[in-house]
Amino acid sequence: MENFIMHNPTELHFGRNVLENLGEKANNLGKKALLIYGGGSIKRNGIYNTVVSALSKNGIEFTEYPGIKPNPLVNDADAAAELGRKEKADFILAVGGGSVIDTGKIVSVAIPQEGPAWDMIKGKTHPRKSLPLIAVLTLAATGTEMNRFAVVQNPETREKLGFHNPLMYPVYSFLDPQFTLSVPKDYTSYGITDLTSHCLEAYFGEGHAPLSDKYVYAIIREAIEIGAPLLNNLQDYELRARMMYAATNALNNLTSYGRRSGDWGVHSVGHILSVLYDVPHGASLSIVYPAWMKLHRNRIPERIRELGKNLFGTKTIVDTIEGFEAFFSGIGSPIRLSQLEIEKPDAGLILETMNKNKVGGNIHKLSPEDNRKLIAFFL
Amino acid sequence: MENFIMHNPTELHFGRNVLENLGEKANNLGKKALLIYGGGSIKRNGIYNTVVSALSKNGIEFTEYPGIKPNPLVNDADAAAELGRKEKADFILAVGGGSVIDTGKIVSVAIPQEGPAWDMIKGKTHPRKSLPLIAVLTLAATGTEMNRFAVVQNPETREKLGFHNPLMYPVYSFLDPQFTLSVPKDYTSYGITDLTSHCLEAYFGEGHAPLSDKYVYAIIREAIEIGAPLLNNLQDYELRARMMYAATNALNNLTSYGRRSGDWGVHSVGHILSVLYDVPHGASLSIVYPAWMKLHRNRIPERIRELGKNLFGTKTIVDTIEGFEAFFSGIGSPIRLSQLEIEKPDAGLILETMNKNKVGGNIHKLSPEDNRKLIAFFL
Repeated sequence: MENFIMHNPTELHFGRNVLENLGEKANNLGKKALLIYGGGSIKRNGIYNTVVSALSKNGIEFTEYPGIKPNPLVNDADAAAELGRKEKADFILAVGGGSVIDTGKIVSVAIPQEGPAWDMIKGKTHPRKSLPLIAVLTLAATGTEMNRFAVVQNPETREKLGFHNPLMYPVYSFLDPQFTLSVPKDYTSYGITDLTSHCLEAYFGEGHAPLSDKYVYAIIREAIEIGAPLLNNLQDYELRARMMYAATNALNNLTSYGRRSGDWGVHSVGHILSVLYDVPHGASLSIVYPAWMKLHRNRIPERIRELGKNLFGTKTIVDTIEGFEAFFSGIGSPIRLSQLEIEKPDAGLILETMNKNKVGGNIHKLSPEDNRKLIAFFL
Repeated sequence: MENFIMHNPTELHFGRNVLENLGEKANNLGKKALLIYGGGSIKRNGIYNTVVSALSKNGIEFTEYPGIKPNPLVNDADAAAELGRKEKADFILAVGGGSVIDTGKIVSVAIPQEGPAWDMIKGKTHPRKSLPLIAVLTLAATGTEMNRFAVVQNPETREKLGFHNPLMYPVYSFLDPQFTLSVPKDYTSYGITDLTSHCLEAYFGEGHAPLSDKYVYAIIREAIEIGAPLLNNLQDYELRARMMYAATNALNNLTSYGRRSGDWGVHSVGHILSVLYDVPHGASLSIVYPAWMKLHRNRIPERIRELGKNLFGTKTIVDTIEGFEAFFSGIGSPIRLSQLEIEKPDAGLILETMNKNKVGGNIHKLSPEDNRKLIAFFL
């Protein structure tokens, strides 16, 4: 086991009607909020009104920046930061799924920073302060509600990049599984593949951390247990709650303590598919992960075999990979790019973009030849 | 799943030589420490010198209260609090095993409180403030380094009681597995039974929390994996590290989120054996738990069976209980009171003390008849 510091500062409120605590907690952070949200579904389902009424009951003013895209754009983060500066916001209140909360995180460090957010994401500037962030989550998937990560896209450079900083942990997060009851079948499925992939990125990292490995098995087994029943009962509170809690746990550091690093190579490839063909994040991962395991079957055979043994009770690498393909397919998430309705996916363009963006993991690097093989596996 | 707030404020530094960070962190808390420790082994093994030199390098003065007993006494907490008040300590620095850190927790809330600590533990007074606490752990077992619990004994009333308050989380904890390399075989074994029992108390609580159940399986499987190898290689850093981390995880809230409550009935019975016969805490639990499962085999059959299935791959209740007996025996922890060298254990006195102290769990109550049966199972 590697040395580590175990600490997660986020105070996460989980369960039915937890927004009842929002006003009191927001009051701890100031009197002026910058409210960030997405396409407006929170207005249709009443969450917007609940949030606004909690703020006004506590005498908290707010200014709002709506319209965050599902694959969030750095331009929006810059524009929201500009608004927050102008309005002298005390804190950020991000209400939505992973894209909205990730944008909120970028904005929270961008406001005191002043320069363009993309410079920070590219490592040219370094955040030193942040505005406190409250997250109200409406979609179970990315785990952003209890971690220091954000992913954002630059449409000009065709890059989608992860960024992390301890300043970006939400101070408070509110997770009411009732808000996820209306998430459609496909995005529910992608949420399950997303949380599963987060566990796998940790597992395929570096460092001997047997208890963290067992947490990976625990969370993926939970995902497998709830997957099919949930997709047949999208309105089931208990299954929604289990999925939401599993997604938080899949990326709140729990699966990483004692490791040197996670891998994240599959995510970097998945991002390429999202940028080129607007493939939903979770779908890109269920497409790339089985292919990635095929590519690595002779490089880390024991690691893949052990995973199958603990998740599916299988004995071989082939059975492990087939176990994942069956799991993803069983919940309706694609395992080949050809399953999506994309007009003429261009293997040449995919390869060129992968090479140009130097996809690959922290531990398991991907050569241009690896990329070619990967594409052949997942096309 | 029940509603819950997921948050653990302790910043835990884990690994080789993590005391290198002690001085800097202590500096955040003040310039005057109350140093609490036990029988002086930390002077023999050099930890005392390391701690004192970290303080002096940072210009932190300290006053000390040594001599905390393995089953810590409330009298010591009162005397240490008195000293801390007199010396105007800014923070508590507890260096030792569970008993020392538990005493540090009681002292941390007792100092601003002023009245006798026992009144607080009996619920007659309520702590409103605390001095910050730093824990340096030298024994892997109780999990106190990352939770809000303390257990303390009153020799006058023959009571051993648990007490908890969110003010009692250590601000910083330092866990260097190297400090545990010299823990003797028997106390290593008791540490493993202790951490296992913490998981079981959560598991046998109330509320449907399937992911938390899977964490219980994960941690106990880790205990089973490391148990026998560690007892044959007491000097193995990696196994010591795994045990230490498992013990932290067994009682840092992770196994409890989403449950209404843990049970803690077995602990309440174990405390009776400790008070009457000075049975080490972990040994008392390996003695009582199999007996408790025998008593409950017709009351919660599915719950016991499911546990065996996930830990030992067994199918029946009897096999589950035998699985635990074999596990505890295999690491040299007793499963009957008669295995300890106690002169004439008195079943009548045990029963009387159990009844008088109203032993039993939050969920699974124990009647006097239950107590009689339990004793017959474990004597």
